[in-house]
Amino acid sequence: MNFTIQNVLIPVTDSYTTTNIQVVNGKIAAIATNLDVIGQAIDGTNKLLLPGFFNAHTHSSEMWLRGMVSMYPLELWLAELYDFAPLDVEKVYLSALGTAAETLLSGGTSVVDHLVLIPGQELETIATAVRAYKEVGIRAFIAPLIQDESLIAGMPSGGSQPRQESYFRSTGETLAIIEEAVQQFHCPEGGVNILVAPTGIQLCTDALFTGCIELSNRYNLCRHSHLLETKAQEKLAQEKYGCTAVAHLEEIGYLSDRTSLAHCVWLTDNDINILARTKSTVVHNPLSNLRLGSGIAPVLKYLQAGVNVTFGCDGASSNDSQDLLEAIKIGSILHNITDFDYQNWITPRKAIEMAALGGATGLNIANQLGSLEVGKAADLVMYDLTNLSLLPRTDPIGLLVLGRTTNAVHSAWVKGREIVSNGQLTTLNVDELKQELFQRSQWENKGQSPNAKKIEPHYRKVMDLSN
Amino acid sequence: MNFTIQNVLIPVTDSYTTTNIQVVNGKIAAIATNLDVIGQAIDGTNKLLLPGFFNAHTHSSEMWLRGMVSMYPLELWLAELYDFAPLDVEKVYLSALGTAAETLLSGGTSVVDHLVLIPGQELETIATAVRAYKEVGIRAFIAPLIQDESLIAGMPSGGSQPRQESYFRSTGETLAIIEEAVQQFHCPEGGVNILVAPTGIQLCTDALFTGCIELSNRYNLCRHSHLLETKAQEKLAQEKYGCTAVAHLEEIGYLSDRTSLAHCVWLTDNDINILARTKSTVVHNPLSNLRLGSGIAPVLKYLQAGVNVTFGCDGASSNDSQDLLEAIKIGSILHNITDFDYQNWITPRKAIEMAALGGATGLNIANQLGSLEVGKAADLVMYDLTNLSLLPRTDPIGLLVLGRTTNAVHSAWVKGREIVSNGQLTTLNVDELKQELFQRSQWENKGQSPNAKKIEPHYRKVMDLSN
Repeated sequence: MNFTIQNVLIPVTDSYTTTNIQVVNGKIAAIATNLDVIGQAIDGTNKLLLPGFFNAHTHSSEMWLRGMVSMYPLELWLAELYDFAPLDVEKVYLSALGTAAETLLSGGTSVVDHLVLIPGQELETIATAVRAYKEVGIRAFIAPLIQDESLIAGMPSGGSQPRQESYFRSTGETLAIIEEAVQQFHCPEGGVNILVAPTGIQLCTDALFTGCIELSNRYNLCRHSHLLETKAQEKLAQEKYGCTAVAHLEEIGYLSDRTSLAHCVWLTDNDINILARTKSTVVHNPLSNLRLGSGIAPVLKYLQAGVNVTFGCDGASSNDSQDLLEAIKIGSILHNITDFDYQNWITPRKAIEMAALGGATGLNIANQLGSLEVGKAADLVMYDLTNLSLLPRTDPIGLLVLGRTTNAVHSAWVKGREIVSNGQLTTLNVDELKQELFQRSQWENKGQSPNAKKIEPHYRKVMDLSN
Repeated sequence: MNFTIQNVLIPVTDSYTTTNIQVVNGKIAAIATNLDVIGQAIDGTNKLLLPGFFNAHTHSSEMWLRGMVSMYPLELWLAELYDFAPLDVEKVYLSALGTAAETLLSGGTSVVDHLVLIPGQELETIATAVRAYKEVGIRAFIAPLIQDESLIAGMPSGGSQPRQESYFRSTGETLAIIEEAVQQFHCPEGGVNILVAPTGIQLCTDALFTGCIELSNRYNLCRHSHLLETKAQEKLAQEKYGCTAVAHLEEIGYLSDRTSLAHCVWLTDNDINILARTKSTVVHNPLSNLRLGSGIAPVLKYLQAGVNVTFGCDGASSNDSQDLLEAIKIGSILHNITDFDYQNWITPRKAIEMAALGGATGLNIANQLGSLEVGKAADLVMYDLTNLSLLPRTDPIGLLVLGRTTNAVHSAWVKGREIVSNGQLTTLNVDELKQELFQRSQWENKGQSPNAKKIEPHYRKVMDLSN
């Protein structure tokens, strides 16, 4: 539907201006102070318009366990997650709706869902997420999480024990599922994209990576993985390859300008140069990195080296929210403690650019999305600047990024379709969703998981923790 | 007013229970599953009841500049703040209302306002804050920010230049103002407390500290200061005293079980032992410490040494919000990256205890506040667990602390008086407040402040930053 936003504040270089914006056929058709109303007239008075942000890494179904997993580092956290996470297709559907809703209500119009697949129901899981995201209308980048090694392989052995247990599904079968999903669901024009998404070096063979590269090349798919989230993974890469994980991924040809890599906490300076050279994108998940004690990703170094960086919430069990503005705030200010020279710090305007254009760049669509430019898709978010959390009036982007907004998203559009209006989702009955989430869960305080308990002694040993 | 909350969830050891709570004459009179209704019956179904938290360090009037001050370390940030912060009494009033509102809507029932005083209108400033907090009904700990050295003294000299400019008000006059404020306003029973609050070693002489100690002893007042927020202050202490700031404050007798110290980022292990020995309290302000690049306070070390730690938002220009739940979340998970041993990490339950009982302990009133116990004051907050941000149902406290709640506070009481009801403040017209904040401000993107520009070369030199 066509529309014209009138008298809305938008950022211009080092300042703001009040202007009008025409949206025609899902694209920004004009931005100027004097414009005729085309289609619906929308009042932008006392509102700020920005390009929609990207929630560039999450796992939607983790919503079912948020707030519950113990205070553990990734490796033990994952073991507990597996113990407590029996999924069904209906749950996948509801948590995708919830993830979309929270993303939209915190400034995001695109989500990269590194989707956990139900064993034996892989295509159904993907179909379900596709259905949920299409219903809500958020732009979806579904990255089915695949691996071909079992969980125990993800920990460094410390040289002391065999690491291999066979995985229940072969590499070839896994790749066949992804290819089938691409053929059924990959439709960028319709707002649904499938990515190849081997979970990371810790649980994938080179055969799986190579198969994903082939699919990516054949179908023009983006690539998405975890990379060096923890110190344990850094150790593991050395055990597995005798070099850094980044050097290995470059060697096998996985890194590219359509490759986005979640976390990137434990990289060397040389690794950083490789990311810059290959035009790979770092997805920074600051809340998750803190919650799991993974460390601080060297984001200021990435920016200085010219590496594209954007933000993700990560799954809601390691965050434990899907508030993109929170990820942007913490992902900006966290790095001030890593460099005494404040001239290198991320400004609120830079943060906004990373969240919007940086996200689009990581998915190789910066020519179509990520900024307020004529010709780009109308993935837009309008913030109500009369919200208490955005008052008194000072610098609107400063308030948005450094403050803690609640209910500040007034409207959101994806490809010109209004998904949020007056703070409410237009495509989803949130009360019904809440009832479903409520009914399928219970308040509880689970004890330690058997799996985490089982692998804890080994973890403590290889990570040099006292007993 | 007396009331009885029915069927509300409360935490018990490692679990939860559904119970009833009677509040009589402002105190918790009974907690049990079978209780008669005394006074008003309040439905606690699907709600979680917790003791109110303490926003244990803030500067309310900074609300006027939130979102606007440049990305600077404290010393330059402060210079910019001074340039851009012309205050008047009406602004003090409105920002105190706003600070109270945001604190209440994020779980706080007490606020420690390290109140910036308008020069020449010091008592009026204090009277205004008292009026605002009494109107809203939040429990107020007003700590008038005093100093007797000028701003330039707050930077280490690096041995190169004289540091002294005389301050516009004498030490004696400053102390007289505080004593007058105590006599006029200090009334713990009425919910208003005055603290002695020399800003910190960077801008105060020993004469001011000693005068504050005398007032504290004479009137039984708590003591509140900044302490070693930045590396520059650590350098300054060595220049000024030839020992650490903590060693000096112990020597002059400032540290005690009613002394709370904001920030505490740059302490030695010996300093930490001094805080433990003197029973001093650390107020952790994680957002501000990140925003200003101050560093990570060694909170896990404090807890291990037995030092009481609680949370503050700090002023809204260095945060830039007054969301206490955000401070509690980040103040908990931030420390996971400082210690690989996850067994030392702060759990959500521990965080809640720090925010409630820890706050009360820091103000020497742990016998009256900070936990759900019969006989304690009814400073209570009830959270709506059917809020989307708290669903699906898992561990309620885990969701509250690790999630990112929006609008989750259903009700709040201070001394049994209902201040928040069904998510709305009962004592404040927030729409009117918003209008006032809106009308007295404008959207702007201020350039660099003259003062910050003036002192920047010296700052870069003493902090060994390249030019």
